[in-house]
Amino acid sequence: ESPFDPTSHPHRRLNPLTNEYTLVSPHRMKRPWQGQTEPPQPADLPQYDSKCYLCPGNQRAGGAQNPDYEQIYVFENDYAAVLPPPGPEAPSAPHPLLKAEPAQGGCDVLTFHRRHDLTLARLSLEDVGEVIEEWCKIYEKRGKQEGINYVQIFENKGAMMGCSNPHPHGQVWSLSTVPTLPATELANLVKYSLSKPTPSDAPRGPKGQPCLLCEYAHFEVGVPLEEGRVVHKNEHWVALVPWWAIWPFEILLLPYKRHVPSILHLNPDEKVSFADALSVVTKRYDNLFSCSFAYSMGIHQRPLPSLTLDIANDDDDIAHLHLHFAPPLLRSASIRKFLVGFELMAEPQRDLTAEQAAVRLRALSATHYLDAQT
Amino acid sequence: ESPFDPTSHPHRRLNPLTNEYTLVSPHRMKRPWQGQTEPPQPADLPQYDSKCYLCPGNQRAGGAQNPDYEQIYVFENDYAAVLPPPGPEAPSAPHPLLKAEPAQGGCDVLTFHRRHDLTLARLSLEDVGEVIEEWCKIYEKRGKQEGINYVQIFENKGAMMGCSNPHPHGQVWSLSTVPTLPATELANLVKYSLSKPTPSDAPRGPKGQPCLLCEYAHFEVGVPLEEGRVVHKNEHWVALVPWWAIWPFEILLLPYKRHVPSILHLNPDEKVSFADALSVVTKRYDNLFSCSFAYSMGIHQRPLPSLTLDIANDDDDIAHLHLHFAPPLLRSASIRKFLVGFELMAEPQRDLTAEQAAVRLRALSATHYLDAQT
Ligand SMILES: O=P(O)(O)O[C@H]1O[C@H](CO)[C@@H](O)[C@H](O)[C@H]1O
Ligand SMILES: O=P(O)(O)O[C@H]1O[C@H](CO)[C@@H](O)[C@H](O)[C@H]1O
Repeated sequence: ESPFDPTSHPHRRLNPLTNEYTLVSPHRMKRPWQGQTEPPQPADLPQYDSKCYLCPGNQRAGGAQNPDYEQIYVFENDYAAVLPPPGPEAPSAPHPLLKAEPAQGGCDVLTFHRRHDLTLARLSLEDVGEVIEEWCKIYEKRGKQEGINYVQIFENKGAMMGCSNPHPHGQVWSLSTVPTLPATELANLVKYSLSKPTPSDAPRGPKGQPCLLCEYAHFEVGVPLEEGRVVHKNEHWVALVPWWAIWPFEILLLPYKRHVPSILHLNPDEKVSFADALSVVTKRYDNLFSCSFAYSMGIHQRPLPSLTLDIANDDDDIAHLHLHFAPPLLRSASIRKFLVGFELMAEPQRDLTAEQAAVRLRALSATHYLDAQT
Repeated sequence: ESPFDPTSHPHRRLNPLTNEYTLVSPHRMKRPWQGQTEPPQPADLPQYDSKCYLCPGNQRAGGAQNPDYEQIYVFENDYAAVLPPPGPEAPSAPHPLLKAEPAQGGCDVLTFHRRHDLTLARLSLEDVGEVIEEWCKIYEKRGKQEGINYVQIFENKGAMMGCSNPHPHGQVWSLSTVPTLPATELANLVKYSLSKPTPSDAPRGPKGQPCLLCEYAHFEVGVPLEEGRVVHKNEHWVALVPWWAIWPFEILLLPYKRHVPSILHLNPDEKVSFADALSVVTKRYDNLFSCSFAYSMGIHQRPLPSLTLDIANDDDDIAHLHLHFAPPLLRSASIRKFLVGFELMAEPQRDLTAEQAAVRLRALSATHYLDAQT
């Protein structure tokens, strides 16, 4: 019998952040695709679109008017998923199996730039830096608000990811509770911090405890580039296709040189590195299939940001800042991976290995294909 | 301050099968939709399509030819996600955080009917019964196979769910390991079975232990119809929008009169009820937006089916047979709910309550809209 070969033998890989498996079926890339294809992304967007509710000076669906903003504009979502605290107490459950709890908070929208036709991938490093500063401001402001326990920063990019407007923008949902996924990740980070450390010279958590993500990033950075999962590494940040990736070209982006609980803990150098990493990842994504690459991106970090503001060395400091990129495209600008059927009912399944995805992403230029043409 | 009103106050509900929350934002149904719409489903399909790889007598992409089958046809997926056991041992992990295990098994495809233009919703009750018999046969056959520990039966319906062929068909992936979601559910069923029972006359598990799903179904069936989440109830089965539903019109379908670990445990009467329930649910789904309603459906039941064949009263018998329906449509045949951004990065979020969805589904006719027109 032939020995195990991860590029041809189906296997499962464990995500230690969630304790969940992904089924890897590398030989499946060969199957023909006869299903739905995605419509092409709009090309040649105007710099200003009079019908866009995010462009400077325009009116929004809710009726409000945007100012003629210069660079970045932040406003409360006109159709927020949560309402401001305090809210009413939830009534007692009619049966112990019917549990509910109130949820309060606020939903912010931020445009990344006044220009309608740009994306993170096409902003200057300076402008990406401005987005990072804005994220810090919102995280701090919302975190100081009474009753807020988690600030979820995310971006939904591309029509196939349900994004209703190509104007570059992201969202921030601040909530009275820590949502399921960051809560699960935090529980596993805490569990790891209490375990016997793997011998290594990886950075450690605030009290010298093992940090799962410091340890993992340190390991990946040490693997010879050609064999590994690293896509881009700079002074402070590393972008990699995690061992346990679900989406075909999923990326995990995180600082690897020291333990960093939140974006507020980043020093100026680390922020410059962060802007570079964000820029390179989004450029490579666009370059992969020469299109404006769709994804959902989320920043996971320390809950209860209010406590970090006076640099309290709280237990939550075991959180390690990281970004997940979940892009659906698999084979081309029009053929995506559907996480349906088996994936929804049983377990995520992927068709190429994380290492194969990393090879593809590494080989791409860090110059945006649209800029390379000029 | 106004008292808690689940139809206007955002809140979170707990899914006791997974121990995960869903954020419910009922007021959000009002927001305008400017995003991607779904292309219309193909109408007027022919009864036979010479280019369909599932129609009787046709050739498949892999080269094999289908027989001129009468009703149902089962074959191994030409691009299976797993390969037959035994497979090679996985090599030892290069780091404790990089865990992998081999996965083996087999992937079956079954057509539900020879006619290309039908769906479960349009089959006669007798024909739905044939599909159920075929599921039983596959579950038994695969379960007896050495090295198989879980048989995941599912259906992916509709192009927006990544289904590449409208010919009515489902899939069965049989695996050497219990996949993440059924394993999580089973762990929570076991945990519940060890807890102090809620006083009720709900059916109990095989050794008299509390069964989470027997208890839950019993409770829901007892709620006055107008206030509850029940969509359809017959002699043995109930279809309901679970308290913790994620998808707008998600349905949980299960037997509620006695504890039933797997489809092999169903008696003839219960199978007749099952066929009726499957038929009514899929008909109502089509009637909701007058279209062939897309969904992913999965059957969760007892792992290790080989053990049930001699009616061993194993611990795994705490599993209670149930079907999940995950349909993406939200507002019309062309406007779906996107579970992206916040949902992928933090926690599922829904825009109408389970009760509101149940009212809508209950109000629909159980006669298929295409048959009602004639
Ligand atoms: O085999 P199919 O139906 O072509 O493929 C579909 O269902 C599979 C099982 O859920 C998924 O892995 C695929 O992404 C999806 O396109
Ligand atoms: O607010 P948007 O971007 O229009 O809405 C999008 O992102 C939200 C947050 O992930 C989702 O709940 C919506 O389903 C999606 O369409």
